[in-house]
Amino acid sequence: MSKEITSREEDYTKWYQDLVIKADLAEHSAVRGCMVIKPHGYAIWEKMQRALDDMFKATGHANAYFPLFIPKSYLSKEAAHVEGFAKECAVVTHYRLKNSEDGKGVVVDPDAKLEEELIVRPTSETIIWNTYRGWIQSYRDLPILINQWANVVRWEMRTRLFLRTAEFLWQEGHTAHATEKEAREETSRMLDVYAQFAEEWMAMPVVKGRKTESERFAGAEDTLCIEGLMQDGKALQAGTSHFLGQNFAKAFDVTFVDQEGKSDYVWATSWGVSTRLMGALIMTHSDDKGLVLPPKLAPIQVVLVPIYRNMEQLDAIREVMKPLANELRSQGLSVKLDDDDKRKPGWKFAEYEMKGVPVRIAIGPRDLENGTAEVARRDTGEKSLVKMDEVVKQATQLMVEIQSNLYQRALEFRKENTRVVDDYDTFKNVLDQQGGFLMAHWDGTPETEERIKQETKATIRCIPFDGDETPGNCVLTGKPSARRVIFAKAY
Amino acid sequence: MSKEITSREEDYTKWYQDLVIKADLAEHSAVRGCMVIKPHGYAIWEKMQRALDDMFKATGHANAYFPLFIPKSYLSKEAAHVEGFAKECAVVTHYRLKNSEDGKGVVVDPDAKLEEELIVRPTSETIIWNTYRGWIQSYRDLPILINQWANVVRWEMRTRLFLRTAEFLWQEGHTAHATEKEAREETSRMLDVYAQFAEEWMAMPVVKGRKTESERFAGAEDTLCIEGLMQDGKALQAGTSHFLGQNFAKAFDVTFVDQEGKSDYVWATSWGVSTRLMGALIMTHSDDKGLVLPPKLAPIQVVLVPIYRNMEQLDAIREVMKPLANELRSQGLSVKLDDDDKRKPGWKFAEYEMKGVPVRIAIGPRDLENGTAEVARRDTGEKSLVKMDEVVKQATQLMVEIQSNLYQRALEFRKENTRVVDDYDTFKNVLDQQGGFLMAHWDGTPETEERIKQETKATIRCIPFDGDETPGNCVLTGKPSARRVIFAKAY
Repeated sequence: MSKEITSREEDYTKWYQDLVIKADLAEHSAVRGCMVIKPHGYAIWEKMQRALDDMFKATGHANAYFPLFIPKSYLSKEAAHVEGFAKECAVVTHYRLKNSEDGKGVVVDPDAKLEEELIVRPTSETIIWNTYRGWIQSYRDLPILINQWANVVRWEMRTRLFLRTAEFLWQEGHTAHATEKEAREETSRMLDVYAQFAEEWMAMPVVKGRKTESERFAGAEDTLCIEGLMQDGKALQAGTSHFLGQNFAKAFDVTFVDQEGKSDYVWATSWGVSTRLMGALIMTHSDDKGLVLPPKLAPIQVVLVPIYRNMEQLDAIREVMKPLANELRSQGLSVKLDDDDKRKPGWKFAEYEMKGVPVRIAIGPRDLENGTAEVARRDTGEKSLVKMDEVVKQATQLMVEIQSNLYQRALEFRKENTRVVDDYDTFKNVLDQQGGFLMAHWDGTPETEERIKQETKATIRCIPFDGDETPGNCVLTGKPSARRVIFAKAY
Repeated sequence: MSKEITSREEDYTKWYQDLVIKADLAEHSAVRGCMVIKPHGYAIWEKMQRALDDMFKATGHANAYFPLFIPKSYLSKEAAHVEGFAKECAVVTHYRLKNSEDGKGVVVDPDAKLEEELIVRPTSETIIWNTYRGWIQSYRDLPILINQWANVVRWEMRTRLFLRTAEFLWQEGHTAHATEKEAREETSRMLDVYAQFAEEWMAMPVVKGRKTESERFAGAEDTLCIEGLMQDGKALQAGTSHFLGQNFAKAFDVTFVDQEGKSDYVWATSWGVSTRLMGALIMTHSDDKGLVLPPKLAPIQVVLVPIYRNMEQLDAIREVMKPLANELRSQGLSVKLDDDDKRKPGWKFAEYEMKGVPVRIAIGPRDLENGTAEVARRDTGEKSLVKMDEVVKQATQLMVEIQSNLYQRALEFRKENTRVVDDYDTFKNVLDQQGGFLMAHWDGTPETEERIKQETKATIRCIPFDGDETPGNCVLTGKPSARRVIFAKAY
């Protein structure tokens, strides 16, 4: 199988698809809209999970697990929520199969029809708040700070690996609080956790901000988000944190008695990130040779490749590479020594470039003589000849440098592609020709937002927390605008 | 809420249910057969996952993720498999809901009927082997050593928390090999991993053995298992490892070209353990005061409880407890200092006994004067007065001692409750009055096995790998028997 992929310039969408397949990250399954996450892709996801999970626990959260199925009637209990979620979803109607009469397979047993259909969870607010009702009586039971790692299903007609699939993996935090203030603080705290994860682990700069009313989560009173900018100038929403007010507490009748003996509805938040982050990671850093991974999320951080013409040479190089590999491991690095004789060095170079291994160390016969190694970094492609006794130090430093370089590069890209735009023609031109984040004034109405979306496909990604707060005039209507917001086309 | 539970002697089943609820491990959800795993229960499961996952990786396996849904027709492709699994399962027939005409909720949209129904996976052999077909061409692609952590659904009419639920969490390993020998070795290797995990982490002695033909996994040629003995004398199958032969490769047409250029079907194994292990853990060690946990799986290993009459005393004790907690943590222990003023020490003692915290350290005003602490171990209930400068050492040692004591105690129990039985009347009497493992001769026929099951509810748990291999006569029919097997009533 050739490891060549379409170039980004030629066709960004095709490049992405090629890369996901050729780097062994994921593939489409036989089940419409559902993907198979392959070991290399899953190993990256596991690293993301571990880092996020540690951060959730450090902020006081515990994991739990709630049912996959939600009774159909639950979805209708919160008015906005049902509009947003109870449409495209997988519906379980029966609980038994039986042998078909022709003896050639199985058919659904019509006698095993459920009284009430079950929905495969598209998100778990309803089943969780129905459960919390039994857990919360008094202020002593609050706050509840729970997260769940789970699969969810939203029936999507047009799917793209990691970015939009019918089934995907995610985490969903669901917290319950005694006061509005505390719940709002939690909403912000978890957005900060997401932003920190995106920047420090994924090396992906993000803008923190607030969604407009029409982009809010169905059932939320406020949705905060982090937005990344992909290489093709499109935005990607990388995580959301919702202040749910008392909406779900009211829908599921969850009240508590406070310290003064007064009863009130409980305040809620929910927040989540998903395997979509894999798509964001790919589209932030990768190039025409394949995946580029920040060292902190790379399942293999350093690969050692021997260059040899005969087995004698291979043996001699192994003698040097094995202790080197162990020394690198003792520094906490994840190392692969690929001395497989069935593949040529050229094939291996291409393979590990495709898979995004941050540092490659090659040693040939001449290196043996000279006491050197060739150290190549995946992010810049730079190679350097390094003395053997400096290789470990060099590799360790490169982990830090590459992590930082990827972040800086992405940050530069975002700066270059964030443009202040003041009139609608420019707005449309920039969107068409350059994309990126457009900082523009908006009159604050859903109607204007919708018209711009219809006419240009750009949506308001967020009202950013930082940045220019000077008033101005709406880019479309000329009406007064309190401040600029970020428009972009988005994944 | 009172923390009292039914005693084991009074009603073992009720004791189990009470304990699972009162120790905050899990509860029934509003969805029939599906449980909510609460934070304390999930924290134990996470520890199990982490230990198992490390062992899988150390034996060369990688994690991946396959779809939740299986096309109905896939289940029929392997004849034995469909008999075993395609009966009680959740069937997705539609992919959309719409607003009901009365405006009061949502109904299934009849226009959104799937062409082929999807089954929520009861196990994933079919979807995975359908995927492996695309991954395997030559011997170079083998072995494939993959594990998946996932939720599965088997529609159960009578459910019990952890032991038998419609949805449960598990891991399923699915490996592909070039030779029968290699696949059989893998089957044994993973059984050994399970046995090691059960004994070293869960402190639960298990018997390794082989299932009889009628107890085999649907689609397997050989099923190996580990069997534990619960406190009420019933057996519990704690893990299975299956040699699948070429059955799934044939059903899904998965062939490979070997080194000589010859094509053959691929050999397979699968192996799994589930949240059922939580039930096994509970019923191996716990007592009438609640959960008893082996230290290696305890989310909190040491709890510190101050005993005080006024805030001044509490402050003074805190001064001592905080550095103690940190010192314990620096030894790698998971520690909770419970200085919550809303609860009394007596309540806390009962609470942490119920939740199975292995070691409790209490310090009161007199201890402060004397430079001592009261150290209590959960497994034996023993308390001792320990000098402050020896508390850390003592607690660390207790981790090892308790882990070992729990294992030894369970091993003793199993020895006492493993009985050699030679005639059918004794067989029935022992089963009725004492339970436990019955080592009895069996003529090797499914008919005899079935009759014994019908008449006594005892099943053959396994043909053990170790133990007496002397021939004899079947306990029911008197016909020749190659060796004794283990009968027991089972969960």
